[in-house]
Amino acid sequence: MAEFIYWIGMAAVAVSALTGVMEAERKEVDMIGATFVAVATALGGGTIRDLLLNRNVFWIADQTYLITAVLCGLIAFFVLRSREIPARWFLIPDAIGLALFTALGTQAAMQWHAPWLAASLLGVITGVFGGVLRDVLCNEVPLVMRAGELYASAAWIGALLQLGLMETGMHAVWASTVTMVAILAIRLAAIRYHWTLPAFPVKGR
Amino acid sequence: MAEFIYWIGMAAVAVSALTGVMEAERKEVDMIGATFVAVATALGGGTIRDLLLNRNVFWIADQTYLITAVLCGLIAFFVLRSREIPARWFLIPDAIGLALFTALGTQAAMQWHAPWLAASLLGVITGVFGGVLRDVLCNEVPLVMRAGELYASAAWIGALLQLGLMETGMHAVWASTVTMVAILAIRLAAIRYHWTLPAFPVKGR
Amino acid sequence: MAEFIYWIGMAAVAVSALTGVMEAERKEVDMIGATFVAVATALGGGTIRDLLLNRNVFWIADQTYLITAVLCGLIAFFVLRSREIPARWFLIPDAIGLALFTALGTQAAMQWHAPWLAASLLGVITGVFGGVLRDVLCNEVPLVMRAGELYASAAWIGALLQLGLMETGMHAVWASTVTMVAILAIRLAAIRYHWTLPAFPVKGR
Repeated sequence: MAEFIYWIGMAAVAVSALTGVMEAERKEVDMIGATFVAVATALGGGTIRDLLLNRNVFWIADQTYLITAVLCGLIAFFVLRSREIPARWFLIPDAIGLALFTALGTQAAMQWHAPWLAASLLGVITGVFGGVLRDVLCNEVPLVMRAGELYASAAWIGALLQLGLMETGMHAVWASTVTMVAILAIRLAAIRYHWTLPAFPVKGR
Repeated sequence: MAEFIYWIGMAAVAVSALTGVMEAERKEVDMIGATFVAVATALGGGTIRDLLLNRNVFWIADQTYLITAVLCGLIAFFVLRSREIPARWFLIPDAIGLALFTALGTQAAMQWHAPWLAASLLGVITGVFGGVLRDVLCNEVPLVMRAGELYASAAWIGALLQLGLMETGMHAVWASTVTMVAILAIRLAAIRYHWTLPAFPVKGR
Repeated sequence: MAEFIYWIGMAAVAVSALTGVMEAERKEVDMIGATFVAVATALGGGTIRDLLLNRNVFWIADQTYLITAVLCGLIAFFVLRSREIPARWFLIPDAIGLALFTALGTQAAMQWHAPWLAASLLGVITGVFGGVLRDVLCNEVPLVMRAGELYASAAWIGALLQLGLMETGMHAVWASTVTMVAILAIRLAAIRYHWTLPAFPVKGR
C-alpha cells in the first residue's frame, strides 16, 4: 500500500507541475519563473498539509518529488513554448491533480488521527492549495473560488466518501482508489454538464 | 479562565467567518467559495500563529472551531444572498474579530514564552492575518495595508497594553478583556473620527 | 563563524526591510502598512525556511532581527516620505538581500541535513520568498516570476555552487562568502547586460 500511495503521489506531482506551467504561460514569465510556479503548484498542497499536521515536509524527507516537479516543469515549459495547447486541455490534468491530492491528503490526515471534519478539510486543502498558490502567484482570483462547475465541492464530497468507506473497514488502497475515481468523475461531469452550486448574483459592472 | 478564552475564540471565529463572506460577496464566488473564504478568514490568523509557535494547530486539535466557521459561513452565504447588507456594516464585525483575535494571540504567545516584541507581533498577526488571507484570496490589496483609519496600529497598541498589564501582575482574563475593549474602542473611534497615521502621499494617476 | 552568519543575517534583514518600504511607497499605505511590508519582506524568507525545516522560527527565538526590521522599516518610511529615490536604486538592495538570504538559507538547510536539491531550493526560497510576500501584499505579480534579468536563477546557481564548495571541504564561512559575492555579481551583471532566460513569448494584448 505504501508503494501505491507513493506512485500516486508522484503522478499527482507530475500533472500538477504541468498545470502550473500552463497557467504561467499566460503571464510573461521565463524558464525559472515557470518552473517556480510548477514546483509551487505540485508541492504546495502537500506542504501546507504537512505544516498543519506538524509532520516532516514530504519533499525534504524524499527529494524525488522535488526532482519530478522540476523536470516536469522544465519539459512542459519547452513543449508549451514550441506548440500551442488549447486552453480547455488545462482542465483535465487539473482535475486529475485535484482527485489524487485530495485522496492522499485525506489519507495522511486520518493516519495522523485528525478528527473527521478536519481530516476532510485537510484533504481538500491538499487538493486545492497548490492551485491556489499557482493562481495567487499569477495574480488571478483562485480557480477554486470562482463561481463555476463543482471544484472544491467535488473534492469535499470525495474526502467525506473516503472517510465513510474507511469507517466501514474498507482497505485504505481501495478507499483511496474509489475516492480518486469519484472526484475525477464528479469534476469532469460537472464541467461537461455545467453542474454548479448556488452563487452570489453577478454584480452589474 | 481557559473556558473564557475558549468562548471568546469561538465568537471571534464566528464574526470573522461573517466578514469573509461579506467580502466574498463582491466577487462572483459560489457557496463553497464563500465558505472557503469564511474558513480562511476565521482560522487563518490563529493557524499562522500556531505554525510560527510550533504548536499543534488549534482547529485540528479541536474541530469545534472548524465546525463553527463552516456553519457561520454557510448561514452568512444564504442570508447575504437573499438580502442586501450595507457595506459599512462590514467594519464592525471586522473590528470585533481584530480585537478578540489580537488579545487571544498575544495571550497564547506569552504562554509560549515568546519575547515581548515578538509576542506583540504574534498578537497582531493573529488579529490581522485572517483578513489578509481573505483579501489576498479575493485579489484585493489587504485592508490592513491600505492607508486609512488605524487598524494594525490599534491592534499593536492593544497588544503592548496587554503585555504591560500582565507585567503588573493583572490576571490574564482581565488583561485580555481590557485589551479587547481598548482595541475595539480605538478602531471604532478611528473610523468615526478619521484618526490616521502619516502615509505616503497619493501618487497622481 | 556563528557570529559571521549572525551579522550577515542582520544586514540582510535591514536591506530587505528597505526594499519592502520602497515597494510599498508605490501603494497608498500608511506608516504601519509600510512597516508591515518591511517586516514581511525582511523576515518572510527565513520564516518559511524555518517552518519547512521544522525549526524554531528565528525571529521568535531572537527578537533582535524583528527589532532591526521594525526600526529599518520606520526609518525608511520617514526618509522616503521626505525625499524622492530613483526607482532603479531599489534593485541594488534587493540584489544584496537575495544574495545574503540565499547563502544563509542554503547553509541552514545543509546543517539540517536536507538532501542537496531540497537544500538548494530552500536556499532559493529563503532568498526570494520575502520579496514574493512583499509583491503579493502589494498586489503585484512577484518580481521573481516576471520575465527579465536572471533572478531566482542567479540564486539557484549560487546555492548549487555553495553545495559544491562545501563538498570539497571548504569552510562554511568561505563557501557562504563566495556564494554571496557570486549571486550579487550574477544578478547585477544580468541587470547591466540584460542576461535573460528563454521565456514564453509575449501574448498580443
